[in-house]
Amino acid sequence: MISTVIIGNGNVAHHLEKAFLKAKTIRVTKISSRNLTIIPDADITIIAVSDNAIEEVSAKIKNSFVVHTSGSFSMNELQNKTRKGVFYMLQTFSKEKEIDFSKVPFCLEAENEKDYILLKKLAKSIGVNIYNITTEQRKTLHVAAVFVNNFTNHMYKIGADICKSNNVPFEILQPLIDETASKIKQLKPVSAQTGPAVRNDSETINNHLSLLSQEQQTIYKILTQSIQKSNKTE
Amino acid sequence: MISTVIIGNGNVAHHLEKAFLKAKTIRVTKISSRNLTIIPDADITIIAVSDNAIEEVSAKIKNSFVVHTSGSFSMNELQNKTRKGVFYMLQTFSKEKEIDFSKVPFCLEAENEKDYILLKKLAKSIGVNIYNITTEQRKTLHVAAVFVNNFTNHMYKIGADICKSNNVPFEILQPLIDETASKIKQLKPVSAQTGPAVRNDSETINNHLSLLSQEQQTIYKILTQSIQKSNKTE
Repeated sequence: MISTVIIGNGNVAHHLEKAFLKAKTIRVTKISSRNLTIIPDADITIIAVSDNAIEEVSAKIKNSFVVHTSGSFSMNELQNKTRKGVFYMLQTFSKEKEIDFSKVPFCLEAENEKDYILLKKLAKSIGVNIYNITTEQRKTLHVAAVFVNNFTNHMYKIGADICKSNNVPFEILQPLIDETASKIKQLKPVSAQTGPAVRNDSETINNHLSLLSQEQQTIYKILTQSIQKSNKTE
Repeated sequence: MISTVIIGNGNVAHHLEKAFLKAKTIRVTKISSRNLTIIPDADITIIAVSDNAIEEVSAKIKNSFVVHTSGSFSMNELQNKTRKGVFYMLQTFSKEKEIDFSKVPFCLEAENEKDYILLKKLAKSIGVNIYNITTEQRKTLHVAAVFVNNFTNHMYKIGADICKSNNVPFEILQPLIDETASKIKQLKPVSAQTGPAVRNDSETINNHLSLLSQEQQTIYKILTQSIQKSNKTE
C-alpha cells in the first residue's frame, strides 16, 4: 500500500484523486492548497497546484518525499527540506472529460533510485507508459506539448469559428481531425503535409484569405510561410 | 453498375481508383491528364487534378456528366458543355497511407436532382457519410480544413522539431495528440483549451519562448495572443 496526499483543486488533482481512489494499492487524501495547516503523513506528497504556487506550497510541507506535477517547473526548485521528485503526466486534463490513464505517459524524476522506484510503482498502479525524464527533457516536452495540444486545439477553434460564421456544421471535419492525428503514427509530420501551402498553390491561398477575418488572415499567412519554408529545408 | 473515368495522377486519383476497383458496382478507368486523346464514355467522369488544371482539362471532355474533386473550385467553373457536379472528399490523402473510406465525408453537389442521386449512389458504394453541400459551403469547409489539418499537422511538425533538437522521442506526445483530437467530440474547442496561454501564465510563457528558435517564437507569440483574445470574447 502506498499512502499519498494530493494538494490542489485543479483538473490534475481532480483526475488523479479519482484514479487513485479506484486503485486498490493506493491510499489517498486530497487537500486544498489554502488549507495546509494539517497535512497527513504520507509516502508521497503530490503538489498539483499552478506553477507560480509550487514554491510557496512546497516550503510549507514537512512530509519527507514531495513531488510536483508540473511540466515546466524544475525538481530542484521544490522548497521542501528533504526528498524531491516529479510526477508529470503528459496529457490534457479538463474537469468535464474522463481520462484514460492507460494512455497517459508518466514522466518521472527523483533524486535517488529508491524514490524513483516508488514513483514508478505508484504510476504503474494507474497507468502503463512510464518514462524516466530529466527536468530539461520535461521542459522540452512541455513546450512541444503546447504546440501539439494548445495550439492544435486553437486551430480547431478557428475551424469551428469559420464553420459557424458560414452555417456549416463543424462536425463534418471530425474525421479529418482524427485522420490528421493518426496519420503521423505512420508518416513523419513533414511527410504527412498536404494542402495549398505545401503545393505552393497561390490561387487557392488567395481565395482562402478572402474568406477570413483579419486575425485569421495573419495566422493563415504566417503558418503558410512556415510550412513552405520547412518544406524547402527538408 | 456505374461506369466511371478518373482523370489524374495525384493522391486523390490513386486512392479513389483503389476504392472503386474494390467496389462490385463500379467500373473504373483511370487516365492521365496528359493523355486526353481517348477518353472512354462513362456515366461519371471525375477530374482529380490540381485546381489550376481543372478548367483546361474540363474543356476537353465530351462525356455528358463531369465532376471535379476539389474543395475550393466552383462547380460552375467546369468548362464542359453538358452536366456538371462535384465529388469532394473532405480528407487528407497521402500515397503512403491507406484511406478508410467509411470515415470520409463525401460532399456532393450537382446541377439537377437525378445527377445528385447518381453521385450519392457512387459515394455509397465506397463510403457512409454523404452530405449535400453547395459550392459556398464547400469553400468554407476547405479553408476550415486548412486550419484543422494542414496547420495542425504543422504544429506536430514543430513539436517534432523541438523534440529532435533536444533528443527527446516525439512518440511520447502521440497520446496527447490523440486525446486533443478526441476531446472535441465532447467539448467545444474553446472549452477544451488548457495550458499557459489560457491561464495567462506569463512566467511559463517566457520560459517556453527561451527554448524556441526565432521562427518558433513568432508562431508561439501570435497563437498565444489569439488564444487569450478568444478566451476573453467567449
